[in-house]
Formats: sequence, structure tokens, C-alpha cells
Amino acid sequence: MADRWIDRALMGFIRKLAEPVPLRVEVGLSSVASGAGTPDSPIIRLKDRRALISLALNPAINFGELYSQGRLEIEGDLVQQLESLYHARRGALARKASRWFGWTQSNSLRGSRKNIHHHYDISNDFYRLWLDPQMVYTCAYFPTEEATLEEAQWAKLDLVCRKLWLRPGETVVEAGCGWGALALHMAKYYGVRVKAFNISREQIAFARERARREGLASKVEFIEDDYRNISGRFDAFASVGMLEHVGRSHYRKFGRVIQRAIGDQGRGLLHFIGRNQPAPLNAWIRKRIFPGGYTPVLREMMDVLEPYDYSVLDIENLRRHYAWTCEHWLHRFENCYDEVVRRFGPVFARMWRLYLAGSAAAFRAGTLQLFQVVFAGRACASQPWNRNHLLQKSSEQSGQDQEWIPAMS
Amino acid sequence: MADRWIDRALMGFIRKLAEPVPLRVEVGLSSVASGAGTPDSPIIRLKDRRALISLALNPAINFGELYSQGRLEIEGDLVQQLESLYHARRGALARKASRWFGWTQSNSLRGSRKNIHHHYDISNDFYRLWLDPQMVYTCAYFPTEEATLEEAQWAKLDLVCRKLWLRPGETVVEAGCGWGALALHMAKYYGVRVKAFNISREQIAFARERARREGLASKVEFIEDDYRNISGRFDAFASVGMLEHVGRSHYRKFGRVIQRAIGDQGRGLLHFIGRNQPAPLNAWIRKRIFPGGYTPVLREMMDVLEPYDYSVLDIENLRRHYAWTCEHWLHRFENCYDEVVRRFGPVFARMWRLYLAGSAAAFRAGTLQLFQVVFAGRACASQPWNRNHLLQKSSEQSGQDQEWIPAMS
Repeated sequence: MADRWIDRALMGFIRKLAEPVPLRVEVGLSSVASGAGTPDSPIIRLKDRRALISLALNPAINFGELYSQGRLEIEGDLVQQLESLYHARRGALARKASRWFGWTQSNSLRGSRKNIHHHYDISNDFYRLWLDPQMVYTCAYFPTEEATLEEAQWAKLDLVCRKLWLRPGETVVEAGCGWGALALHMAKYYGVRVKAFNISREQIAFARERARREGLASKVEFIEDDYRNISGRFDAFASVGMLEHVGRSHYRKFGRVIQRAIGDQGRGLLHFIGRNQPAPLNAWIRKRIFPGGYTPVLREMMDVLEPYDYSVLDIENLRRHYAWTCEHWLHRFENCYDEVVRRFGPVFARMWRLYLAGSAAAFRAGTLQLFQVVFAGRACASQPWNRNHLLQKSSEQSGQDQEWIPAMS
Repeated sequence: MADRWIDRALMGFIRKLAEPVPLRVEVGLSSVASGAGTPDSPIIRLKDRRALISLALNPAINFGELYSQGRLEIEGDLVQQLESLYHARRGALARKASRWFGWTQSNSLRGSRKNIHHHYDISNDFYRLWLDPQMVYTCAYFPTEEATLEEAQWAKLDLVCRKLWLRPGETVVEAGCGWGALALHMAKYYGVRVKAFNISREQIAFARERARREGLASKVEFIEDDYRNISGRFDAFASVGMLEHVGRSHYRKFGRVIQRAIGDQGRGLLHFIGRNQPAPLNAWIRKRIFPGGYTPVLREMMDVLEPYDYSVLDIENLRRHYAWTCEHWLHRFENCYDEVVRRFGPVFARMWRLYLAGSAAAFRAGTLQLFQVVFAGRACASQPWNRNHLLQKSSEQSGQDQEWIPAMS
């Protein structure tokens, strides 16, 4: 009887976290339930009492842990239900979260290597299962909502090149180059030379092999090193999906690296996951997926550019494109789910399902945003007069007019 | 002999302020000169010793004062010479300036009224002399560098409407509407109803008369009141060239006004003069031209949007367009210079010449920037998928296809 009373109190507590979403909580086979809800309100099903207690004790971490272990199930469409929960969190919890700033990051040279290895060196074979063939693991740009993921990633790479108004013969440095798709795209279609940095060994190996195979090894140099060790002078700087790993306390230093690389004459682009209001990354995501990760608001990001007198030229928010990208990834992931289970185990597979669905939900709900920021030094001479260059087809610039180019209108 | 030595010391001090630009300073008819310079280095010619002492004592204020009084002349092209001096200031002085934060502003309801009256109620007849016929006194958007000022102001108004993706039947509130051109453009070409606020009596009178004459009085209401008194609910918020007058300490309050007006469902646009690095507005400009003025960096501007969970969707920097706009204004101003002298006196005329030339120079040098920021509430349902709507011709939206529209490409 006392147990029953405690269960109800714990379920009540969990339901309170989800307010104003009418969450229904069920425990065990006997289906002790709390919360009537509406027919389409989310239902969380916990395996047993221990799972219930664990969730109530530390919901931020244990929601993900229990889900991964198969001890927590969410009824209905996973992305949709998580989106509802994110909308709830935005009201009450997100405001609180902005005051939880006690957590520490370790993005020192050594710490970063460990953090990046954790996520990106899982295995190229794993990412190959569900990313596009070019292995682009950042927000795509969908010219239309009907575009395929392959088309949208191509369009994103090209959009970045156009935003940087690259011209043949120029030099570019890329900080955090993933599997190399952007650096190779720049060299192939825009005739520039690129030095691309990354501390993920598996990714660098893949990128080098691809450069060799496509005859671009003389134009693109992939360097297995930290962005802080970038040396040399370049016309442009690009960093797509790395600022999230830099860590809040390193932004000034990151700015100094950019300043050293492009000086006052150059221009650059930062593409990163951000927020409307400051908050730490979800605790479980930080624990299991992105150790050391932080997604800044624009005000915080300005710590990179403002001390060095860079002018912001253009900011675009691609939030909805990232929601769409994540849904594509999730769909492809589900298609190879059995293989992921076979090769990486069921806990890993469920962890990744939750992470991909949760990311789609967060971008749909607006808990996360995606910003592309173009900036230029005060002596940058070639700034475009307007945005017309964003519409230019790369084939016109590079003279390769047999290439397929996604329609822009 | 001692006098001679003091003069040289003062001239040396002034030249030091301009470093590394090789400024040449000359005093009086006897042409006591300091600084050899190069053939095209700037020359400042001071009328007498008193002018020299005055400039050395308080260069930030007295450069403008002496110029207005005709006791200081600048050789050669005014905009170009001022641009050189701005480049110099950017190095040494701008860094210092960022620490001069002791100055106070009075942008209370009463203070703002006084400050705005100071600048905008000079006389409609004065502005009519050199602004475009629509009396748009903010940065224009030049589809091409060859466009006329009239075309470029029309294009700017239309660009703002497109950035806000206005649809027929929607409602818009405008904070700081100048002579009403934007509000009228919105109603005329986009079929929306507008409430437009302004505390400049002369401007409101002009705007109302124009609305009446063009048969738009039922769609556009011009209200002579402070932005803080905006009431009612709207689909969109627009403010073009007003944030500069709001004052740094009122940004949160400004955000609250926006939140009250459009809630979480709406979207808005802020168009304002900003900077790369924080600094007070030039002291003379604050004294003579814009009392209470402050031009923020993007980080500071975020104090308007971040507390209310608004998503930044798009930022565009139109710095070069504002340099071009100011040069158009200066050119037109010079064409009616004699009339300005006759009607407003020579000190006023020289003051305005320096202000317009100095503004052109500041935008050319990058001391000032011009930002257009589009934002949306978290429940804003109609956000565009990409930037294609920016290219849409207003005629297609409003069905008025006989209207002249500037070419976009």
C-alpha cells in the first residue's frame, strides 16, 4: 500500500516535469498508470519499479539510459512525442536550465581528442549505414522539401562555397572537416586549394583516401591535428559543425586562431548548432553522445568574432532544414536497424535511435537552432554587393557545366 | 618663440591622434605647418591659434564645432579624407573608446521626445531638399550600384516587406516610422493594415497627409506616440532606424514591447546602424546631431530578442549600401547647399555637410555597420523554407502588376 503510494507520487513528479503536456506514465506489466491524458497524449511505459525510481531520481540522464536499456518505451511516433515533451520543457525547465552553469568541460588539446574520438571514431562503417554517400554529418540544405538527402547535402556544400564567394586559385582552411566532403567540393567545383584539419583519425583516413581516388590530393591536404595548431595564411576560413565542440570558454582562443589564419583581409563561415536562450546541452547527450559539447546563442558566439573586429555579413537560420535532415537520418537508420543491432548491440542501437529522434524533435520544437554566419575582416576587399552570388550556380564559376546542380527556385 | 614651440607641440599632438595617417596641420595665414606627409595625405587647415588650442583640448567635440564655424578646413575630397582618419582612429582610438562608458543617455519618455525633436523636427522643408521624394531617411538598398536613390529606397522598402513575408489582410506595427514611406508601401503593395508610431510631430503630419492623398488612410494609422505605448496585437513588427535612438539600457524594455505586440506567433524586423566592436557614438554627433544615440554591436542587440526566446532567422549587413546612400545624400545636399545656407545659416549648413560626409566615411571605413535582423517567435507557424521569397516581386504578391519594380539581378 505504501509502495503503491510512493509509485503514484513518483509518477506524479514525472508528469509534473512534462507539464503542460498531459503525459501518461505506466509501470510494469500490471500497468499501474498515472495521468488520464487525451488519446494522443504521450505515454511513457517503464519496465519496473526500479526504472520508475531511477527516472524520478535523475530524469535528465536516466530517460536516455533507461530508453537505451529497453527499460523505458515511448508509445507512438517517437519524434512527435519527443517534440511535445520539448515544447513542455521549453516553458518551465529551459528557463531553469539557463542557470545551471556549474558544469565543466574539458576541451583542452588532450580532452578534445578524447571527446571527438568518443563520437566520430565509432567506426566509419557505422556512419556509412545511414549517412549520405558523401558522409556529410551536418545540417543539409533542402532546395525543396522533396529533395533527397544526397541532393540536399550537395546543395549545402555548394551553398557554403557560394556564401564564401570562393574564386579559383584562392586558399581555404577548414577547421573540423569531418569525412572531407566540403574541402573536396571546394577544390573540385571552385578551384581552390584547401587545408582541412580534424582530430578524428578514422575520418581523416577516409577523407585522404577519397581525395586520392578523385585525383584531388594535390589540391586538398587533410591534416590530423587540432584546430588550435592551424598555421599559415589563407583567403578564407570555414568551420561546419565544429563550434559545438569548441566549448564556451575557448571562443576567444578560437577567434585568435581565425585571425591568425585569415587576418583582416580574409572572410569566413561558421556553421553551428545554436539556441535562442543559453542552456547547457542535455545532460544525457553530453554523457553518451557529445562529451564537451555546447550549443551557444548568437550573443555568446560573438565572443569569437567581436574581439577581432570581424564584420558579420550574413546569418541564416537553417533550423527547419536540420529537423528535416535528422528525420532523413532517422529513416535511413531505421532501415538498417537490425544490422546496427547485430553489429553494435541493442543498447547502442536504441541509444542512437533516441539521439537521432531527439535531435529531430529539438529542431522541430525550436529548442535547437542552426546558424550559418558569414564574416569578413575590415580589410576584406572583395565583399559582394548583394546576395545575388548565393544564387549563382557553381558550374558557371568553375566551368564544369556537366555537373548536376539542384534547382534553386 | 615660446608660442611657436607651443603651436608645434599642439600640432604634433593632433597629428599623433591621426597616426598612422600622415596628417598635415596648418595654422593661420602664415601657414605654420606640421607634418610633411605625402602629396595625397590629409591636410587640416586651422583659422588661428585659438582654433588650434581648442582642437587640441577636445578633438572629439571641437573638430566638428570648428568645422561648422568655418574655423577648420579639410583639403581635398571630404569623404575620402575623413575615411582615412577613420581608418586611423580604428586602430588606436577605437580600442580606447570601448572603455569610455561613463556617458549617460536620457531616453526616458520625456528625454526621447526632446532628443527626437532635436533632429527630426528641424523642418520637413530641409529634408525635402536632399532626401528622395518619399523622404526615406535610412539606408537604401541598391539592386545595382547604378540605381538611383529613388529606386534604391523603393527597393529597400520592398526588401523589408519581403523579409517579413507579409500577406494580404495581416496586421503590422511599426516603431519609429519616419515620414511614413514603409508603412504606406506595406499597405499599398502587400495589402496589410499598419499602425505606425513616431514621436516626431512634423513627420507624423507629413505621413498622415500622404496617406490621405494616396487613399490609404483607412489602412495605415499614424500615431504620434512613443514606441513604449504601443498596444494591441499584430502579425508582424518592424522598426527601421529606431534602435539607434532606443539607448543601450532600454533594450530589454524594447524587447518587452515587441513581445507584447506580436507574442510568440509573430515575426519582426530590426534595421539599425551597428558596429563590430562596442563604442559610444562620436561625441560631436551625439552633441549636435543625435542626442541619446547609440549604435550597438550584434551581441548587445541580442538583449532585445534573447530574453523573449525569439529566433534570429536572417541577418544581412548593408554597410556598403549605407555608404552609397550617404554619398547620394551628400551629393544632393551639395546641389542645394546655397539654399541651405540662405535658409538655415552657414554654421548649420557646414555642420550637416560634415555629418553627411562623416557618415559616408564611417560606413566606407567600416567604423559603422548596417544590420537588418529578421526574427520570429517560437510559435510562428509560417516561416519560409528558404530565401526564395526575398526574390519574389511584390507585384506577384499583391496582384498589382503595373507597378514599376527595380530589377533584382
